[in-house]
Amino acid sequence: MAFEINSHFLNDFKELIDANNSKEVKKLLNELHYADIADIVDELDFNRALFILNLLDSETTADILTELDDDTRERVLKSLSSKEIAQNIEELETDDAADIIGELSDRKKQEVIDHIEDVDHAKDIVDLLRYEEDTAGGLMAKEFVEVNENWTNLRCVKEMRKQAQELEKVHIIYVVDDNQKLIGILPLKSLLTTSAKTPVKEIYEDKAVAVKVNDKGEDVAQIMQKYDLVVLPVVDDLGVLVGQITIDDVVDFITEEAEKDYQMAAGISEDVDSDDSVLKLTRARLPWLLIGMVSGTFAASMITDFQTVMKTAPALVMFIPLINSSAGNVGVQSSAIVVQSIANKSFKGKLLTHIAKQLLVGLLNGAVLATIVFGLSQFFFHIDINISITIAIALTTVIINAAVIGTIVPIILNKLKIDPAVATGPFVTTSNDIFGILIYFMVAKLMLGF
Amino acid sequence: MAFEINSHFLNDFKELIDANNSKEVKKLLNELHYADIADIVDELDFNRALFILNLLDSETTADILTELDDDTRERVLKSLSSKEIAQNIEELETDDAADIIGELSDRKKQEVIDHIEDVDHAKDIVDLLRYEEDTAGGLMAKEFVEVNENWTNLRCVKEMRKQAQELEKVHIIYVVDDNQKLIGILPLKSLLTTSAKTPVKEIYEDKAVAVKVNDKGEDVAQIMQKYDLVVLPVVDDLGVLVGQITIDDVVDFITEEAEKDYQMAAGISEDVDSDDSVLKLTRARLPWLLIGMVSGTFAASMITDFQTVMKTAPALVMFIPLINSSAGNVGVQSSAIVVQSIANKSFKGKLLTHIAKQLLVGLLNGAVLATIVFGLSQFFFHIDINISITIAIALTTVIINAAVIGTIVPIILNKLKIDPAVATGPFVTTSNDIFGILIYFMVAKLMLGF
Repeated sequence: MAFEINSHFLNDFKELIDANNSKEVKKLLNELHYADIADIVDELDFNRALFILNLLDSETTADILTELDDDTRERVLKSLSSKEIAQNIEELETDDAADIIGELSDRKKQEVIDHIEDVDHAKDIVDLLRYEEDTAGGLMAKEFVEVNENWTNLRCVKEMRKQAQELEKVHIIYVVDDNQKLIGILPLKSLLTTSAKTPVKEIYEDKAVAVKVNDKGEDVAQIMQKYDLVVLPVVDDLGVLVGQITIDDVVDFITEEAEKDYQMAAGISEDVDSDDSVLKLTRARLPWLLIGMVSGTFAASMITDFQTVMKTAPALVMFIPLINSSAGNVGVQSSAIVVQSIANKSFKGKLLTHIAKQLLVGLLNGAVLATIVFGLSQFFFHIDINISITIAIALTTVIINAAVIGTIVPIILNKLKIDPAVATGPFVTTSNDIFGILIYFMVAKLMLGF
Repeated sequence: MAFEINSHFLNDFKELIDANNSKEVKKLLNELHYADIADIVDELDFNRALFILNLLDSETTADILTELDDDTRERVLKSLSSKEIAQNIEELETDDAADIIGELSDRKKQEVIDHIEDVDHAKDIVDLLRYEEDTAGGLMAKEFVEVNENWTNLRCVKEMRKQAQELEKVHIIYVVDDNQKLIGILPLKSLLTTSAKTPVKEIYEDKAVAVKVNDKGEDVAQIMQKYDLVVLPVVDDLGVLVGQITIDDVVDFITEEAEKDYQMAAGISEDVDSDDSVLKLTRARLPWLLIGMVSGTFAASMITDFQTVMKTAPALVMFIPLINSSAGNVGVQSSAIVVQSIANKSFKGKLLTHIAKQLLVGLLNGAVLATIVFGLSQFFFHIDINISITIAIALTTVIINAAVIGTIVPIILNKLKIDPAVATGPFVTTSNDIFGILIYFMVAKLMLGF
C-alpha cells in the first residue's frame, strides 16, 4: 500500500520519459502520492525531473516542492520564473509557502511575493517570514478554524464550512473571545454530538495548551509530545490567536534534531548524507579531526616528558591504547547519558550529586576492568607485578576521571547555553585522551618512584 | 500556558499532602493536565504519590498511569488490586490499556482482563496483546470511526455520533465496503461542506495509505512521516480494517528509537537515565567497556611484537595516542553517516561505490592531517625526517582504513539484519584501535626497513 521506488520501476519510467511518452508518464504519476513523485524526482537527472514537473498541475507541483531534497528543490526553483513560483505557492498552506520563499534570494523573494494574487495569502506569508526558523512562529501556519464563544453550534458549522474550504485537514476548532483572544477549544466530537442550538460557550473546553510565537522549537516539540497533541495553537503576547502548529512539522523537527545530535556526537560538523559529494563529506569531518589532532599532539609531548618512566618500565607503553580507548569510551558514555537527560528534560538535581554518582559508577567499572587487566598482564604478558599493580590503579583513576569529565562538560556547556550534544563526541574523547595519558604516567611515576 | 514543575511548587504540594489537606490538593490537581500530574507523581515519594492518586477519579488515574515513568507505574500497579486496575483500564483507549496490561505478570494479566466489565473492550484488548510491541498491530488502537460506502452523508453523521462518543478525538473517517474492507477515507471537511443527501461513494477519497498488522514500527513511522499523516489505518491480510495508529504514539516511538540509537552509538547497552541507580548505570556500561578491553589487550600484544621497531625509533611511541584517536574519530564519523542514511532510507547505490567514496574522503582528510603531523614532528618535536615521513604515511593509511571499516561494518550488519547503529560506537572504535596500531607499526617496519 505504501510505495517504494525500485530500480526496475525507475528504469521503465526513464524509458517512457526518453521516448517522450507524456500520456503514459502522466498515467503513472496519477497513481502516485506527491511524496512518492518527489522521491522519483530526487532520483532522476535534472532534465527528466523537469519533464515530469511540466506534466503536473500547479497544486501537485507545489506539494512536490515541499517534499524534495534541498539540493533538488534549489535547482528546480532556479529553473522557474518568479511568476511560476508564485503560482505554485498560491496552492500551499502558508507555512510551507514561507519555507519555500525563505530559501530564495532577497530579490527573487520580493518578486515572488509581488506575483502572489491572493493578497491575504501574501500578507500571511510575509508575516511568517519574520520569525526565526526554529521558533513557534517559524513552525506555525496561518490557517486554522476559529469560532466565537458567543456563536451557536449551528453558526459554527456554517462559519467552519467557509473557513474549512481553505484548510486541508481540520483537527480542532479554536474558540476566541470578541478580542480574538484564545480562550479554549471545541472538539469536533462536541459539534457532532450536541444539538444545533447549543451555544459554543456551553460546550467548549477552557483548558487549551498554547505557545507564544517566540517560544523555541524544542519546547514546542516537548509540549506536543507531553500532551499528545496533533495541533498546537500559537498566540502573540496579547494572547491573540495567530497561528497553529501541526504535528507533522514537529515530527520533522524532532527527527532533524535527533539527527543533528547524533551527527554531533559522531563528530560531524555539517548536516551531511552518504549521497553528498566527497568534498562536502571531507569538510564536514575535518574540524573535529583537527581538534583530535591537537589533543594527540599534547599527548605526544606528554609522552616525551615521561621518557624515563617508559625506559625503566617499557611494559607501560603496551597499555597506552587500552588506557586511551577506556578513557574515551567511559567519557562518551557518561556524557551521552547527561546529554540525553538534558534533552528530554529529565535532568534534575545538584551538580555535586551527579559528580558523586559518576565517581561511584567510574569506581565500579574501573575496578572490574582493572582486575581483568591485572590478571591479563600477570598471566598473559608476564610483566613485573609492581608494574601490573601500577597499570591497574592508573586505569581505575583514568576511568573515574573520564566519567567525571564526561559528566561535567555537558552540564557546563548547557549552563553556557551551548548545545551540550557537542560534548559527547570528540570533545570528551579528546580531553580524555590528554588527561588519560597524563594521569596514567603520573600515577606510574608516583607508584614506581621516579 | 504550558506547565513546568519547580521545586517551590513541589514543596508547597508536599506540605499540603503531609498536612492531609485533601481539599486544597484536589483543587490544585483540578487545574492541571494529567500529564503534569504524572510528572508530579514521578517526583514524589511513593506514599505521597498514592495520596494523590487516591484523590482522583478512575479516568484521570488511568490517564496518569499511561504517562508515568516505567518504575513508578510498576510500583503503582503493584499497589492496586486487579479489580482496581480493571476499573482504570475501562477508561482507556484499547492501545493504552493493552500497553499497561502487557506490563503485568501473566496471572495478574488474566485477573485484570476477567474484571473488565465491558466485554467488547476486553476482547479488543486481548486481541491487541497478540501483537509484538514494535509492529503496526502493537502500536494501533481498536477505536476508529468507519462508514459504509453505500451510506449517505446524513447517515454517516448519525452513525459517527454513536461511534464518536467512545472516541477522544476524531481525525478521519474510514470508508469500508460491505466486507469491512478498507476502500478509502472521508475527510471531515467533505462531511462539513457537502449536502446531507450526498452518498459517501461520491465524496470519499479512494487513495488511502494503510499498513498491515505485522508491518514493522519503523516502517509505520517512516510512512506517517513521509505522507504527513496524523492517523494511519491498519488492515489484516484480507484488507479488513482492524485498527488505527495515531501520530502521538509514533512520535514516542521515533523519540525512543532515536534515543536508543544515540545510546548505542555511545556504547550504552541498556536504556538508562541519569536518575537510575549506580548499579544499573554500571551494568549498562560494562559490556562495551569489556569489548574495548579485549581490543586494548590485542593492541598491547601487538605493541610487544614491535619492540624492535620501537627501540630503534622511540619517537613512534609518542604518536600512538594520535594514531588511535584519529582512527577512532574517522571510524565513528564514517559509520554514523552510513547508519543515519540507512535509518532514514536515503542509503542507495552499490557497496563498492561507497567504499571508493570513503577511500577518497579518507585520503583527503588523511592528507591534511598527515601534513600537519609532519610539520609538527619536524618543527616542534624535531625528530628524524625519515620517522616524520613514516608517521605521516602511517597516519594516512590508518585514516583510510578507518574510513573504510566505518563504512563497511554498518552495511554488513544491516545485511545480516542486525541494527547497524550498534556499529557506530565502541564496535568501530575498537576494531580501529587494533587495526590502527597494527597498520601503524607495519608501515613503520616496512618504511624504516627492519
